[in-house]
Amino acid sequence: MGKEIPSRSEDYSLWYNELVKKADLAEHSDVRGCMVIKPYGYSIWEKMQQALDKMFKDTGHVNAYFPLFVPKSYLAKEASHVEGFAKECAIVTHYRLKNAEDGSGIIVDPDARLEEELIVRPTSETIIWNTYKKWVQSYRDLPILINQWANVVRWEMRTRLFLRTAEFLWQEGHTAHATAGEAVKETLQMLDVYADFAESFMAMPVIKGKKSEGEKFPGAVDTYCIEGMMQDGKALQAGTSHFLGQNFAKAFDVQFANKEGKLDYVWGTSWGVSTRLMGALIMAHSDDDGLVLPPKLAPIHVVIVPIFRSEEELARIAERVDQISSDLRKLGYSVKFDNRDTHKPGFKFAEWELKGVPVRLAIGPRDLENGTVEVARRDTKEKQIIKLDDVSKAIPDLLEDIQRNIFKKALNFRNEKITLVNSWDEFQQVLDGKAGFISAHWDGTAETEAAIKEQTKATIRCIPLDSKDEKGKCVYSGKPSNRRVLFARAY
Amino acid sequence: MGKEIPSRSEDYSLWYNELVKKADLAEHSDVRGCMVIKPYGYSIWEKMQQALDKMFKDTGHVNAYFPLFVPKSYLAKEASHVEGFAKECAIVTHYRLKNAEDGSGIIVDPDARLEEELIVRPTSETIIWNTYKKWVQSYRDLPILINQWANVVRWEMRTRLFLRTAEFLWQEGHTAHATAGEAVKETLQMLDVYADFAESFMAMPVIKGKKSEGEKFPGAVDTYCIEGMMQDGKALQAGTSHFLGQNFAKAFDVQFANKEGKLDYVWGTSWGVSTRLMGALIMAHSDDDGLVLPPKLAPIHVVIVPIFRSEEELARIAERVDQISSDLRKLGYSVKFDNRDTHKPGFKFAEWELKGVPVRLAIGPRDLENGTVEVARRDTKEKQIIKLDDVSKAIPDLLEDIQRNIFKKALNFRNEKITLVNSWDEFQQVLDGKAGFISAHWDGTAETEAAIKEQTKATIRCIPLDSKDEKGKCVYSGKPSNRRVLFARAY
Repeated sequence: MGKEIPSRSEDYSLWYNELVKKADLAEHSDVRGCMVIKPYGYSIWEKMQQALDKMFKDTGHVNAYFPLFVPKSYLAKEASHVEGFAKECAIVTHYRLKNAEDGSGIIVDPDARLEEELIVRPTSETIIWNTYKKWVQSYRDLPILINQWANVVRWEMRTRLFLRTAEFLWQEGHTAHATAGEAVKETLQMLDVYADFAESFMAMPVIKGKKSEGEKFPGAVDTYCIEGMMQDGKALQAGTSHFLGQNFAKAFDVQFANKEGKLDYVWGTSWGVSTRLMGALIMAHSDDDGLVLPPKLAPIHVVIVPIFRSEEELARIAERVDQISSDLRKLGYSVKFDNRDTHKPGFKFAEWELKGVPVRLAIGPRDLENGTVEVARRDTKEKQIIKLDDVSKAIPDLLEDIQRNIFKKALNFRNEKITLVNSWDEFQQVLDGKAGFISAHWDGTAETEAAIKEQTKATIRCIPLDSKDEKGKCVYSGKPSNRRVLFARAY
Repeated sequence: MGKEIPSRSEDYSLWYNELVKKADLAEHSDVRGCMVIKPYGYSIWEKMQQALDKMFKDTGHVNAYFPLFVPKSYLAKEASHVEGFAKECAIVTHYRLKNAEDGSGIIVDPDARLEEELIVRPTSETIIWNTYKKWVQSYRDLPILINQWANVVRWEMRTRLFLRTAEFLWQEGHTAHATAGEAVKETLQMLDVYADFAESFMAMPVIKGKKSEGEKFPGAVDTYCIEGMMQDGKALQAGTSHFLGQNFAKAFDVQFANKEGKLDYVWGTSWGVSTRLMGALIMAHSDDDGLVLPPKLAPIHVVIVPIFRSEEELARIAERVDQISSDLRKLGYSVKFDNRDTHKPGFKFAEWELKGVPVRLAIGPRDLENGTVEVARRDTKEKQIIKLDDVSKAIPDLLEDIQRNIFKKALNFRNEKITLVNSWDEFQQVLDGKAGFISAHWDGTAETEAAIKEQTKATIRCIPLDSKDEKGKCVYSGKPSNRRVLFARAY
């Protein structure tokens, strides 16, 4: 079918790139680092958005929209924040084009220089806290529980479709609270929401943890994250939730009168997931034949391929398929009847496998006679014959089973690839061989963290929330340590 | 309640501005020309998005996402297009900030100048047609029916919340077709979708028409529009649908092999509506007490205000309200129980009127005894007492009636304010007195159009699609004319 992709074992990185392109998910645009999200890819993102948006609203959040541009001086107000983002900003300096006087074409009008440069938001803490300042006077104005769906820009030098692009789509929650306790609770609640989304919808097991000082968000007091494992054993940070303390409130002078009438700075959180999740979804489950989509995020749940030799046969099949489709649609499933007469069934099978449609039904004249249909599931490639009359009972169960199975497979894979390591030799061997997550003792210093990263490219993915107190020695420095952390190479 | 707004007759413009702010819809940000869409305003926009998105999908369109940035050279490829947008562009010239060497703060790094400047998209025809070039080889690749939900930036010098802002949110459809006829059909289909949305959801009657050459979209062959009338008699262009001919296909060399194997340029359309619709919605229906929202776009359908003197009374009311709310929610309505004990009923009534909630229920201890409840509708301010047991039957009918009534009122107002005018004196008198739309003969020349605009600030809103052939003389030049067009001052 001319759409073959390399195998994962051959070249994992190329497999990913080709899969993203050939499954019509996204492609590079001519604008450096920016991608075009194609309709099929976008329809998966829409499913993610819908599920997340509902989860945000169910936890009391509302959506709003803040400006795309951040004045340079705002970005500079929180010291570590600007330090973290200054190196990768898209900067608007002018507001008009004009015809060059020498007739050479369109040029930037030098007379239309902005007094203050505007940064295309890399994240919106600064513009939002500058707004919250106007909204908050008293504890009665708190909490503010706002989420924004938006595009952001970080001028990354090395980009990969979905995983790291100059512009990406995301949601960013920004909340304001009267107490530190409330803000911490919110931070952890949203971490749980992300973990629940990753596991229940994406079928991707994640480890919840806290970032080291070196890996935390610029401007946060604490950064929490969910880390997933890809099929090459590398980690992918799938979402972060930050406890901002009073950092942004202080930078933007957001104070409130508490119940005792005393002025205090507001406590903040922010949390986000992005189109990066698309990359995680693809790399967590897909195989050498293409995408494997968990049913809860699949734009098409069931594809029906007719096996026919004549128009008359197709017409008879179509009649029965109409019934089946209608029944399944009533149950809330998306059904595609691929009745093209320009392609053979084998081509269609391969195409829908590439696109990750969870269930395929194939039905021919003999099936009609026998009242049967062939059901193939994408995840295991297993086929079975079932009765046509049973379709609307069998498919819902099958889809649930596929959702469960994809998660279970990823969970088993992930768990097998978490290795307890106690020596530096072993650390390096595991990293270069088995790969995956390494659970090891760390002395808690930035120096050791940096040295390990320098020597192995492995970073501390997180200090898992469920990690136990355990006396040990740092795998690198030999200094004392109180608990294990997770190391891995990461996307 | 400290939230009073000026009356429309006093100062229509101030009434609008204050209403937008006090009803918590939007506010100006500190970034010149950019607004913050507040949660209540955004929730109305979300309702618009959902309805429109469904209409687009029902007519065969899919969503996708294209880059925020347009290379300067792309914008320049279609001559009239760049002419139309060059004067109001936000231009990205650099990609990094750094610390000033003299310690004076953060500055734009002069070494990080982009080779080619990037324009923040004012609209996406250029970046999208540059992409379509890669997607289209044969007639089999057509049509492409794509919509994008996005933010765009036009550096307007004079801005007003929702009506004209530097950054705004919108959707832009971009379709590609094998024939001119198909593209024209698509253009008109989407015009119908917009008109249907405006009338059925926004309860705002619109006139469908074609723009004059002078008012059409830069790069279009024909621009069609829907024009609504605001309560001050001014017009508001609420949506446009453009037949692009082969203009962008030629500018970006998008050719396809037709069924005969012959190469031809692709035919295009684009169409969009924006957060401007929020301004139209507000100005079409609202009154001196605040917003009047058509139920189909109201984030809250029913607000329930308890009338109580003690906690015990409130508890008894709450119990009954829980039942009512639950019943209404099951029917798909959004219900708010305003049980605050910090504000009196009168304050709450005014607040929910300001926010345009279509139906208010007030319920006190005596109502409980009598099994009754007071129902007030926002549009007419009429009140009636109904039986508590009838609520879940009466409310759906009432909401439908409100939706119909708001439309009818706006339709009557609009129709009364369309004046047939046959002389230049009358033209000016009507414009300065009665205002509204003026139906008059026009000689079809750009000169006359410009002269009328210059002298009266009235523009040709459109040549209505249903206008009849009628011989006459141009109201301004006296030259012959074949049909009337609509003039008005406009937002």
